[in-house]
Amino acid sequence: MYKVSVCQFEPHLLDLDFNLNRMLEMAGDADTDLIVFPELATSGYVFQNKEELIPVAEDVQTGKSFTAFRKLCAQRNFSVVYGFCESSGDKLYNSAALVNPDGSVHVYRKTHLFYREKLFFEPGDTGFNVFPAKDGIPVGLMICFDWQFPEAMRSLALAGALIVAHPSNLVLPWCQEAMKTRSLENRVFSITANRIGTETNLDQQETFTGASQILGTKGEILLRLPTDSEDLLTLAIDPLLAENKQVTTYNNAFTDRRPELYRSE
Amino acid sequence: MYKVSVCQFEPHLLDLDFNLNRMLEMAGDADTDLIVFPELATSGYVFQNKEELIPVAEDVQTGKSFTAFRKLCAQRNFSVVYGFCESSGDKLYNSAALVNPDGSVHVYRKTHLFYREKLFFEPGDTGFNVFPAKDGIPVGLMICFDWQFPEAMRSLALAGALIVAHPSNLVLPWCQEAMKTRSLENRVFSITANRIGTETNLDQQETFTGASQILGTKGEILLRLPTDSEDLLTLAIDPLLAENKQVTTYNNAFTDRRPELYRSE
Repeated sequence: MYKVSVCQFEPHLLDLDFNLNRMLEMAGDADTDLIVFPELATSGYVFQNKEELIPVAEDVQTGKSFTAFRKLCAQRNFSVVYGFCESSGDKLYNSAALVNPDGSVHVYRKTHLFYREKLFFEPGDTGFNVFPAKDGIPVGLMICFDWQFPEAMRSLALAGALIVAHPSNLVLPWCQEAMKTRSLENRVFSITANRIGTETNLDQQETFTGASQILGTKGEILLRLPTDSEDLLTLAIDPLLAENKQVTTYNNAFTDRRPELYRSE
Repeated sequence: MYKVSVCQFEPHLLDLDFNLNRMLEMAGDADTDLIVFPELATSGYVFQNKEELIPVAEDVQTGKSFTAFRKLCAQRNFSVVYGFCESSGDKLYNSAALVNPDGSVHVYRKTHLFYREKLFFEPGDTGFNVFPAKDGIPVGLMICFDWQFPEAMRSLALAGALIVAHPSNLVLPWCQEAMKTRSLENRVFSITANRIGTETNLDQQETFTGASQILGTKGEILLRLPTDSEDLLTLAIDPLLAENKQVTTYNNAFTDRRPELYRSE
């Protein structure tokens, strides 16, 4: 069995130190193999302009967050996935990092930017990739609004993901229910780590929906948090269940696919 | 506005005349533009072998069902979609026909066969196509288990479907909820016409789940039938709402897609 955790909290806008400390504190005594934190967990979300993001933007290999999580993961022998504002040259990406106990790090840059994110971030250029987390478990990374596009999680599942880690800052009403279909159609586990709270920045305001969840391979809710409180919850799953794509004795969710008959554009 | 109807009933196994008469009876006084009937509505579903299907298999252009529906559609000035056992040479397909008031007919052959259907039917070779129903409204056709594969409805939506007609004989517990995601991710209307009843044929038995439904472009339930009773219900929709793929002022469910980053195999 493999212990997976979802962490839901309320980041403070543009306060990297507070947010990082809060995540380290919440992760501190978790007995787990993998923790998923929200999207842009280190930076907050409701930005006015790109300039104010610069102080909380981090290089994935040298930033405060990676440095702290690399140390924590090695000490505690678990992997973490967290959303952060990635700087690369003069470009910013809405990214998620997977950090492992051995110090390795893998990055996903959000493919489908949501709403005003398009004003600050470059569209992700990494595509959908699967990386080994602790014990080599293949984990796929996608971020928040990627849920709207079935191609995102499909790409991860076809690439071999058994667990999809899904850091989020959800404001629309649909994702948590739609993720049931995403897990079911791909027969993979999914961990949606959402934030809570209402964040205001001058004339901009967003309220986040919480209800972070861990879903099983048939889209069943294994765990769902409240909409308005912070918590880190853990449960044990068998990731190898996600290798079984059989729907009936005659049907397989993957080998029954007929890509030659599908339109992609 | 465009009046769409969903018809839920209990076909009798291998009794084409009974089934066709029942459908004609239920459609008889409907004030509508489009009626969707269940999958294999003319034949029943729980077959033992291909041989027993031959007497209820029909050529799409010369069969009893098309002949009767062509007449009805012309008389009543509506389109119908119905599932039937299609014969083509010595091959059988699990097909759906769209018949229009002008006498035109369009056929879809089920792409993803479910369970023991694989013993009787050829895998569909038509792909996912969109056809003009009454007044030229573009309707996409898919059948039952196609719901499991997001590529099916995606293909129809990308091809321009505003309404997806979805004749079904559902036995698994997931489709009706998953179709909310299908409509939402594609921003199209969907009409799932399911059958009811328990059908037995020697050692084979299936119980069908009813709950036929019409969903709006955000996956909202506009109408859902009970699980166990026959009915034909009609409501008026504006199909052109499905041309609007905007999710937010910055996001479009179609133009935000990035096919160059998606895996299909």
